[in-house]
Amino acid sequence: MSETKPTTLVIFGASGDLTRRKLLPALFDAYRKKRLPKKFFIVGSARRDWDDKIFRDLMREAVIEFEEDFDPVAWRSFAQQIYFCRGELTVAEDFVQLKKDLHQLEDGPANRLYYLAIAPRFFASTVQHLGNTNLVDQKEGWRNVVIEKPFGRDLASAEELSQTIHKILNEDQIYRIDHFLGKETAQNLLFLRFANAIFEPLWNRNYIKCVQITAAESVDVGHRGGYYDKAGILRDMFQNHILQLLTLITMEPPAPYNATTLRNEKVKILSAIRPIDLEDTVRGQYKGYLDAPGVAPNSQIATFAALKLFIDTWRWKDVPFYLRSGKALAKKATEISIIFKRPPYQMFDAFDEPQPNVLSICIQPDEGIHFQFEAKVPDTTHETRTVDMEFHYKDSFPKIDLPDAYERLLLDALQCDASLFARDDEIVNSWRIIDPILNGWQTDDAPPLASYIPGSWGPTEADELLAKEGHIWRMGCGNHD
Amino acid sequence: MSETKPTTLVIFGASGDLTRRKLLPALFDAYRKKRLPKKFFIVGSARRDWDDKIFRDLMREAVIEFEEDFDPVAWRSFAQQIYFCRGELTVAEDFVQLKKDLHQLEDGPANRLYYLAIAPRFFASTVQHLGNTNLVDQKEGWRNVVIEKPFGRDLASAEELSQTIHKILNEDQIYRIDHFLGKETAQNLLFLRFANAIFEPLWNRNYIKCVQITAAESVDVGHRGGYYDKAGILRDMFQNHILQLLTLITMEPPAPYNATTLRNEKVKILSAIRPIDLEDTVRGQYKGYLDAPGVAPNSQIATFAALKLFIDTWRWKDVPFYLRSGKALAKKATEISIIFKRPPYQMFDAFDEPQPNVLSICIQPDEGIHFQFEAKVPDTTHETRTVDMEFHYKDSFPKIDLPDAYERLLLDALQCDASLFARDDEIVNSWRIIDPILNGWQTDDAPPLASYIPGSWGPTEADELLAKEGHIWRMGCGNHD
Repeated sequence: MSETKPTTLVIFGASGDLTRRKLLPALFDAYRKKRLPKKFFIVGSARRDWDDKIFRDLMREAVIEFEEDFDPVAWRSFAQQIYFCRGELTVAEDFVQLKKDLHQLEDGPANRLYYLAIAPRFFASTVQHLGNTNLVDQKEGWRNVVIEKPFGRDLASAEELSQTIHKILNEDQIYRIDHFLGKETAQNLLFLRFANAIFEPLWNRNYIKCVQITAAESVDVGHRGGYYDKAGILRDMFQNHILQLLTLITMEPPAPYNATTLRNEKVKILSAIRPIDLEDTVRGQYKGYLDAPGVAPNSQIATFAALKLFIDTWRWKDVPFYLRSGKALAKKATEISIIFKRPPYQMFDAFDEPQPNVLSICIQPDEGIHFQFEAKVPDTTHETRTVDMEFHYKDSFPKIDLPDAYERLLLDALQCDASLFARDDEIVNSWRIIDPILNGWQTDDAPPLASYIPGSWGPTEADELLAKEGHIWRMGCGNHD
Repeated sequence: MSETKPTTLVIFGASGDLTRRKLLPALFDAYRKKRLPKKFFIVGSARRDWDDKIFRDLMREAVIEFEEDFDPVAWRSFAQQIYFCRGELTVAEDFVQLKKDLHQLEDGPANRLYYLAIAPRFFASTVQHLGNTNLVDQKEGWRNVVIEKPFGRDLASAEELSQTIHKILNEDQIYRIDHFLGKETAQNLLFLRFANAIFEPLWNRNYIKCVQITAAESVDVGHRGGYYDKAGILRDMFQNHILQLLTLITMEPPAPYNATTLRNEKVKILSAIRPIDLEDTVRGQYKGYLDAPGVAPNSQIATFAALKLFIDTWRWKDVPFYLRSGKALAKKATEISIIFKRPPYQMFDAFDEPQPNVLSICIQPDEGIHFQFEAKVPDTTHETRTVDMEFHYKDSFPKIDLPDAYERLLLDALQCDASLFARDDEIVNSWRIIDPILNGWQTDDAPPLASYIPGSWGPTEADELLAKEGHIWRMGCGNHD
């Protein structure tokens, strides 16, 4: 019976930051909620000269550091499932050794999830090693692989990586992770739209004036200048997180709902995005970026971008979507704002034209929903003012700690539910949208690299992009802007 | 110039409760906000043997009792405008004397508003006296009359009263007051619907499952048994307040917006209400009502009613409207709930069918808007729960005291704006809806007079009225029910 078959999670890159900060804390949390498979092994793999005990002790420290109210009794039993297997990603023999160790540990047929918490340059070769060692042969249980982002650094490299991996793995064995999709509010986008009846009738070009997505970070590149100066904002935020949010907010309802239909609908949106005109892009770099360690002295890398795009579907034709993201901005905030059209005529003798209704979905930090509408100012005859209805997850579910995104995604992967993971055609289509901008920004037609002050909302060019059409950036979730 | 012409408010029934509790406090409040006409007189008329000083002193006490933070300095200047003119409603000479006093006071052309804060049996005769004395002749300024409710006690008496009054006054001189319409939230119904773009597309039979209006009082009849036992809940609450709320929530957008177009639209709704089947009515009487002073020992008067009705328009055809009101109920609360249809199919594998979206508009006591929708329960995969977005007037406008309904209505009447007053055809059409129920409840086809426990939500028959169609009473504004 498959229920009695153990499940093994093999983490490549077990000595890395992701394992310490995210994976082990998430796994321990899931363990305490009794959501992990009954027979379960965690096998860390890294080239450090550790043993089980050292690895367990280090992970214990990590969990104490990153989890609230550590439970030492639960940890003791949880830690029994944790093992370490030394190995280098480039050494074929180490995979053979891993295979032996896993066989010994599992003592019979088992399911296995390989988590590649490693540098992207090792994705392809590690999968090849797994293939060469028959570690992904599914005769004795399923063998799935979680691949961290970024998946490629442009269209060509993503397609190449995809082809290499597909020689070893079927698409349904590949779990490309984007932790944004594990966030409660990202998941709730679908529930908001499809578990409620009143949004869907309004969710189209007839009633919506424009849609805005802001993913703002207040931190600058810090000590990650070396990485960032090769990536830039388009690779870091747009190709993955922002386009994923865009698909969730715009896709048709999948029917029936499952991982395949859901991702089919997302791909339909990505395929329908009109090629983006370079004139509809803004690129910025915060003042001081060039001084960050690891950054080239004449770097032209953008730390901020704003785009305008259109989705050529029946539902969205000619509705502008404005996307922006950047480092060193005024605050950390990710939100989606739906700006509705104004009422067709102004019935009351107000002095000012009434503001449009705005529905804002706050992904982070304060997960919730805000709706701005017009109300009569009391004790006046016809004056209106914008007021706010609010919903905060924290208020409605005070007893439930919002779980870390990785917890949900790990549990889904352990249950072979790929709904919240990116499929090959999603990745390829995302790059198809971003690639021409990356390339265009290398040409003479590129918009100027605008400078902006750290702590601002980015270069003024981003405001002008909207002002051309009579729009302004709106953020409904805080009191900023 | 008309701006220099004084305005006089003549209050018939100046020694009554309404004058003390509502009119003078509202006028003083308006005075302090500098909203009264520049040259303004208040003339109280009653048969008490008072003079200006006594009346002023009594009104001062009343304002101290019913207004917060009394301002004695402002009162002293305000009180200079207050006069008393002794007179009996049945004595023709007293109207002649009033006319002389007004002429002397006004010392030239003036506008006049007569406020009939008197028992309904004197409405017709008082208007006749005003006519006979030429007090409503408009040669030297406008002459309008505010008539308190109830306007008639059934269709025949309302039509008779109307005919009598129309012999003396033009319709545009008549201001039939329903203080419910002066409440901020009642006024805001129109702003909510027509100053926002997202409600109107949903506001019809395609998206709305049913509409409910509850006007619940927690008090019983108290010492008003004598009055109440002749009126009953249909006259006391349905013919006026509840049908007025119904028109505001259902009418088409008036264009252009003015008192005439607004009331045209209200009348269109009242005219389109399908005759109510007696089987769609519930009548109740709370246990203990018969012991109240002034109540007949075998009284069959209803202190509770629930009705189901339909509006045969393109917009509302076949959408059930459930109305209920009663004395001695669980709490004091007036609210309108719009229950939307459920999503067409249940996308997620939830255990329970998702609840419908409900928009609740709270008229009193906590004026505001609540929207109930479904959200994913955090840390679950597919579980949903109903959550609440809230807007409270008090929170959004903390510095503005919600003015008493009478203040707004008095100011509107002083500015000859009849928008918030009931027109003749509104009254007649309201009675046309209620009259057959009043009559039907006297016949053998009447539903049984159901008994209910004080402090409950009325008789179980009211729940069964909805249960037949698979509905339940929903109240979104509090935590009750």
